[in-house]
Amino acid sequence: MIEPFMTPIRTIMTPGPVEAHPSVLRAMGTPIVGQFDPTFLKVMDEVKEMIKVPFQTKNKQAFAIDGTSRSGLEAALIALIEPGDKVLIPVYGRFAFLLGEICERAQAEVIYEEKEWDGVFSQETVIDMIDHHQPKIVAMVHGETANGQMQPLDKIGPYCQNHNIFFVVDTVATYGGVPIKVDEWGIDIAIAGTQKCLSVPSGLSLITYNDKVEKVLDSRYQKELGLSKEFRNDRHIASNYLDLSQLQRYWSSERINHHTEATSLIYALHEGLRLLLNEGIDNSYARHQLNDQAIVAGITAMGLEMYGDPETKMPTVTPIMVPEGIEAESVRSMLLEHFGVEIASSFGALQGKVWRIGNMGFSSRHENVLHVLGALEATLLYHGATLNRGQAVQAALTIYHK
Amino acid sequence: MIEPFMTPIRTIMTPGPVEAHPSVLRAMGTPIVGQFDPTFLKVMDEVKEMIKVPFQTKNKQAFAIDGTSRSGLEAALIALIEPGDKVLIPVYGRFAFLLGEICERAQAEVIYEEKEWDGVFSQETVIDMIDHHQPKIVAMVHGETANGQMQPLDKIGPYCQNHNIFFVVDTVATYGGVPIKVDEWGIDIAIAGTQKCLSVPSGLSLITYNDKVEKVLDSRYQKELGLSKEFRNDRHIASNYLDLSQLQRYWSSERINHHTEATSLIYALHEGLRLLLNEGIDNSYARHQLNDQAIVAGITAMGLEMYGDPETKMPTVTPIMVPEGIEAESVRSMLLEHFGVEIASSFGALQGKVWRIGNMGFSSRHENVLHVLGALEATLLYHGATLNRGQAVQAALTIYHK
Repeated sequence: MIEPFMTPIRTIMTPGPVEAHPSVLRAMGTPIVGQFDPTFLKVMDEVKEMIKVPFQTKNKQAFAIDGTSRSGLEAALIALIEPGDKVLIPVYGRFAFLLGEICERAQAEVIYEEKEWDGVFSQETVIDMIDHHQPKIVAMVHGETANGQMQPLDKIGPYCQNHNIFFVVDTVATYGGVPIKVDEWGIDIAIAGTQKCLSVPSGLSLITYNDKVEKVLDSRYQKELGLSKEFRNDRHIASNYLDLSQLQRYWSSERINHHTEATSLIYALHEGLRLLLNEGIDNSYARHQLNDQAIVAGITAMGLEMYGDPETKMPTVTPIMVPEGIEAESVRSMLLEHFGVEIASSFGALQGKVWRIGNMGFSSRHENVLHVLGALEATLLYHGATLNRGQAVQAALTIYHK
Repeated sequence: MIEPFMTPIRTIMTPGPVEAHPSVLRAMGTPIVGQFDPTFLKVMDEVKEMIKVPFQTKNKQAFAIDGTSRSGLEAALIALIEPGDKVLIPVYGRFAFLLGEICERAQAEVIYEEKEWDGVFSQETVIDMIDHHQPKIVAMVHGETANGQMQPLDKIGPYCQNHNIFFVVDTVATYGGVPIKVDEWGIDIAIAGTQKCLSVPSGLSLITYNDKVEKVLDSRYQKELGLSKEFRNDRHIASNYLDLSQLQRYWSSERINHHTEATSLIYALHEGLRLLLNEGIDNSYARHQLNDQAIVAGITAMGLEMYGDPETKMPTVTPIMVPEGIEAESVRSMLLEHFGVEIASSFGALQGKVWRIGNMGFSSRHENVLHVLGALEATLLYHGATLNRGQAVQAALTIYHK
């Protein structure tokens, strides 16, 4: 006989998933109603409108996809790509490769332009690449959690718009925690997640796109065979589940029957967005910024080195060099086991060399920052590291208590 | 300022989503832990084992996919299909067309063999079709919610096994409520949902497959580019998000980094499965059967006509002919507005002509059955239908109170 699961309370200071807000958890436990129940349709309509706010967009289309963040990335890219299409992907971290992987599987011709992971591209460099390769689509990551770097986009997007190139941006790790200006930056499709700065559990992806994309979707729309045999389309999207042309019609007043909506997650999303909008997106950005300052002050005061260009550091992720001679995973384990604190390792070449402290959503709180700094210092000392003792938390307090 | 959402309590007697069990809702609201937290890995491992029980399988592979039921159908089919592969789909309802739609999008050559929706195929007929078409894959729906019919499979599967043909079965609407014998029936991949007989909210798909399928997956496995540049595969699966060869390695001890698991839904799934296993799958089947008898007795006593072959009726769905002169949607609206009861309409040719009463999971309770029968009778009388007054609930009580 399997017992009810029993999980501990954690201080989750990773770049996601982070702690879900208690009010979001409560909302998620609301008894469900049918997916076409008028009361649920109202919830969906409000969600659509709220999604647009952190995207800073007037786009007509904004909705949630029933899958984790990468389902939204895939839905976005396969909506635009037809076999042989050229996609340019400037790579400064792990998740650009995920974009590329998805494009390759959609039979695009993918051009990777790689740089070291320790910083981002100058926008002029990216514009030169675009000019050189003349792609149909440029796909980029706004905030790369693997190295904590954030790519400026305000010149790249308008350049794409002026040259009739689609600009697709992964804003999974920045949505709600850092300003994103979809319209002003000329982003055609932006994709976000829920389990980061929104403090909503993982399981949904958020997406918004403009009329230019909607026109493509209209030209590729194919009604599902179970609903009508008369609406075939040679250029239909390769996936049924992630077909934006259908999903859009499910979320519109047309309400076509597609999947069975994950109503409980939509409840959670409604509450998470509501909390964010009540706080005010600018206040949320300021909160993340302040807690980031405290983390950086603490890590620096401790005598640890950070990874990557500080000029373009994401306020929501702090990558820290693992000190010489310290076993990265042993430190993470002790943090989890004795302090209940989770921090992250990294990927690829950075695995085992860099830890990442997240600072996102409901996890982005003074007490969490102070706890993780104290815990990390103690754990490192226990592991024999040479540090400035007792300075990290003091440095953070100095930021907070002015 | 958007207010917190406010949804009513409904008696959900549709073929899904049905009422989530209160204990499942409570479990879902548990504070989250990281997806690689050792305590969560234990939850995942237990879920894997529990999933197998209602499938009655000894398969090594069984896990959940972060998407609604149809994400699992797509993952299953694209795992096997390579362009040009021949797939045979015997159609006796709407959801076979969904299977076909997915196969077509995966560039299979799809052969539909259609019959009227009022019954199922004789297994001999299907075997003859297989013999005739010699497909690589046969894909079928076990329980078709559109018409409430259930296809016997115990001869078709073994025939496929003997002829080295893959047999893929959609058990979304039967899992947990009706016996499914994956191993005995020779099913290579079975796919289920959570929002039906498991009483867990929508958002996950459950899947199991055998070694024969695993071998195909091994031959098509491609590591994600963000994790390794050295592991390319020409025959890789078309989707990254729904790539079973990756998902399997995420759910195994390998724990590759793929998506960010929807931990809250996995909590819900753990509790839903646990409740089902505690009840005992045979007891659950008997409960669904008994409540089905009560529904059928009530509907018949009322003087309404049922749709479809009673011999192969699903115990979890009762399709009812809308009486001449009654407006189907007006009845559904009154049921919802005044009785808080949701029943379903149907699809395609049956839309507006057939209502469907579901009988699934936590919704499959005496009080729900009696409430829906009383409410339907009152609503039909209010709409001017000619009925046997006051007999439906009595007939159902006679079934229960022996």
